[in-house]
Amino acid sequence: MGTTQLDTVPEPKYWHLKTVLAEALDSEFAVGEILPNERELAARFGVARATLRQALEQLELEGRLQRRRGVGTTVAPPRMGVSIGSAKDGGHAEDDWETAGAETAVPPAAVARLLGTDADEPVHVVRRSRVTGGQPVAAELLYVPTASVPALTGPADADAVLRELQNLGLDGEDQAVELGSARADDAKQLDRLPGAPVLVVTTRHFAEGRTAAVGVATYRADTCRLTFGSDTVSLSGV
Amino acid sequence: MGTTQLDTVPEPKYWHLKTVLAEALDSEFAVGEILPNERELAARFGVARATLRQALEQLELEGRLQRRRGVGTTVAPPRMGVSIGSAKDGGHAEDDWETAGAETAVPPAAVARLLGTDADEPVHVVRRSRVTGGQPVAAELLYVPTASVPALTGPADADAVLRELQNLGLDGEDQAVELGSARADDAKQLDRLPGAPVLVVTTRHFAEGRTAAVGVATYRADTCRLTFGSDTVSLSGV
Repeated sequence: MGTTQLDTVPEPKYWHLKTVLAEALDSEFAVGEILPNERELAARFGVARATLRQALEQLELEGRLQRRRGVGTTVAPPRMGVSIGSAKDGGHAEDDWETAGAETAVPPAAVARLLGTDADEPVHVVRRSRVTGGQPVAAELLYVPTASVPALTGPADADAVLRELQNLGLDGEDQAVELGSARADDAKQLDRLPGAPVLVVTTRHFAEGRTAAVGVATYRADTCRLTFGSDTVSLSGV
Repeated sequence: MGTTQLDTVPEPKYWHLKTVLAEALDSEFAVGEILPNERELAARFGVARATLRQALEQLELEGRLQRRRGVGTTVAPPRMGVSIGSAKDGGHAEDDWETAGAETAVPPAAVARLLGTDADEPVHVVRRSRVTGGQPVAAELLYVPTASVPALTGPADADAVLRELQNLGLDGEDQAVELGSARADDAKQLDRLPGAPVLVVTTRHFAEGRTAAVGVATYRADTCRLTFGSDTVSLSGV
């Protein structure tokens, strides 16, 4: 990691430093390796601690670094490609998902609007985790109106709700992805601190042209790249 | 905006404050309205300034607030749903995109891998902006290998590259979405500060089972919700 001349660049100082650091990560550090401490790095690159810290924050946002309490700053492995189910294959690979319980509750107003349920109408809520390569990548709440699973009267367990939903014959879905911050319960499931940036995927599951269920899944933004589209086509492209 | 008892909640203080603030935004403030200053808000909710600031940062991350220099903190409009092209319709609605120039350049290593070009091989690079409802929502670099547009010898303008690419007969695409931070040039196009959180969408365009072009688009994470899937089905679900 040599030093570099940062003074003549029109971009903010930390930004150029970030680029230099990123190149150093590629060429001189292995995944999982702990970086020298901030004081040492700032001295080596001839920048103020504040500048260095901004550059490190950017690299964390881009998934290049991980900062963990009691460990320090380590070089992150490449983000995992996590496939988001398409209408074609009828949903996620279910073997990746683990159910963690169910209850009946009134959904958030935005979810009630998508479901077309009344603002104070309770629905089935199934909590699921998605685990990929042994790592928790997503925490999901799946909201299922009682009208979608009429065979279930009163509270039901997660397996019963999912089974009845399958019986309904889901015939399509769409997704929206946006930036969010991890709620305390999701953060715990994902092994993150509350408030960490996450990618929130809202999925509408359709049956006979109506919204039969809505899933709100919180994906780790630090370790995941969400992929959309046909896998077979993707593979032939490389 | 009443006060509230924050001491008995197991979540971090700022988190509960965030929820209370979000409810107040819904019920007492209009979109675009300027919030009272930090000192006043902290006093009203009986929390330290640092706690208040954490809650405001979370709400900004979730797209509920906008902080602008010289204006203060305002209530953000709901995020725009921005449709990400699917293989079915052959790409984005082109009327939303404005070309801003073209050059030939060596792409980043990750893009060269996707294109299957040599590490030091120059390709056509078309810079485009996506504008929705009069607002810039994305800045894209579209990388097109010379092998995909053999009719063009040497540097070519953006329209020529896009026209030749269309002639190739693109027959599919896939996407990956991940968190990133705005580069200086993208930030300028998007009217953001460099380093602002963005959603990076990498699109592979296929022709005859091979990758004919790769687009790397930077979407504003504060104002956009990226939508995937059939629009006709979506509308019938509400």
